[in-house]
Amino acid sequence: MKLLEDLNWRYATKRMNGELVPQAKLDNILEAIRLSASSMGFQPYNVIVVEDFETRKKIQPAAFNQPQIVEGSHLLIFAAWDPLCEEQVDNYIQNIASERGVGLDTLESFSQSIKNMIKSRTAEENFQWAARQAYIALGTGLVAASAERVDSTPMEGFNPAALDELLGLKEKGLRSVALLALGYRDENADYLAKAKKVRRSKESFFITVA
Amino acid sequence: MKLLEDLNWRYATKRMNGELVPQAKLDNILEAIRLSASSMGFQPYNVIVVEDFETRKKIQPAAFNQPQIVEGSHLLIFAAWDPLCEEQVDNYIQNIASERGVGLDTLESFSQSIKNMIKSRTAEENFQWAARQAYIALGTGLVAASAERVDSTPMEGFNPAALDELLGLKEKGLRSVALLALGYRDENADYLAKAKKVRRSKESFFITVA
Repeated sequence: MKLLEDLNWRYATKRMNGELVPQAKLDNILEAIRLSASSMGFQPYNVIVVEDFETRKKIQPAAFNQPQIVEGSHLLIFAAWDPLCEEQVDNYIQNIASERGVGLDTLESFSQSIKNMIKSRTAEENFQWAARQAYIALGTGLVAASAERVDSTPMEGFNPAALDELLGLKEKGLRSVALLALGYRDENADYLAKAKKVRRSKESFFITVA
Repeated sequence: MKLLEDLNWRYATKRMNGELVPQAKLDNILEAIRLSASSMGFQPYNVIVVEDFETRKKIQPAAFNQPQIVEGSHLLIFAAWDPLCEEQVDNYIQNIASERGVGLDTLESFSQSIKNMIKSRTAEENFQWAARQAYIALGTGLVAASAERVDSTPMEGFNPAALDELLGLKEKGLRSVALLALGYRDENADYLAKAKKVRRSKESFFITVA
């Protein structure tokens, strides 16, 4: 299965060589992310694509100066919606109706169930839920990058408040939850490039209920 | 790119036909999940694999009686570690040392940084963090299933407390966060089987910082 080869090839790249990811590969990775599953298909997050080197340089201090931010080709920022509101649900339902050519009335109970869920939770619970959906897309993006033999580094080591301030995300109703640097490994500089991948054993990771 | 074909093929299957997923395909999907990325490689979750029909029947009421629980072939339960503790870190570090054949002393500062992170957060924050890591694996599992042309349904619509009680997860230091039913679509019974996939437009989903 090629996917297993891809996953075994990938690792959390610590140093990149500045090489540019070709647009066609980037487009495929972004499209995979956009097609990712999410709870009820709601996609309660945005993905910010940063190519500009100067902007990445400004972001770097908010991410503990990790080198991949500027040594990579592109930086993706996964930003969850916060707060969630009825208007977002209405837009989603409208999009389904128009894409599938069905009447809004046929989607009314679905719409109401999403709104009820949002109302039944605290703002923090809604944010955590939205963040989890973004992580499904992060997982998809990691697979897609490896399928294109593009290196990637998922990063939680950054200051979300500082990054949100820098990019004006709060005003857009967004909160950054994870970064994904895309680029190409620098095999000589990266001590992890040749390290054996370590995962828990199947016996420890899976619990089989017979 | 085959991955995009796979993602366009998949959908949140609402009805399945009871057909068994062959062991080789299941093994590939599970291996992809095991190889998933996680923050610091810590994998703070387990995946519970339920094949037994009677057990799935018992689980079904805790998941709003969704039919895929029993119409599918296997049910995966993603369960985050709760609480997190130093022993888990020690086991992880020990595993790295033994897999890579390096001394524990070379991993001491890495070990300490994970322990410090855990200690700096509340139990709830640690749980939310662990849950997010499980969602990366959920995303990987969805891609892997589609690559094997196995249908899947990710589910948050269940009662985690009831499920944890039923399977004795709390005693194992686990909390269920998501389900993944694996099986084969019942095209006649599933109203979604032929529905157009709906995603936000690129323009609405991506924000490009030039």
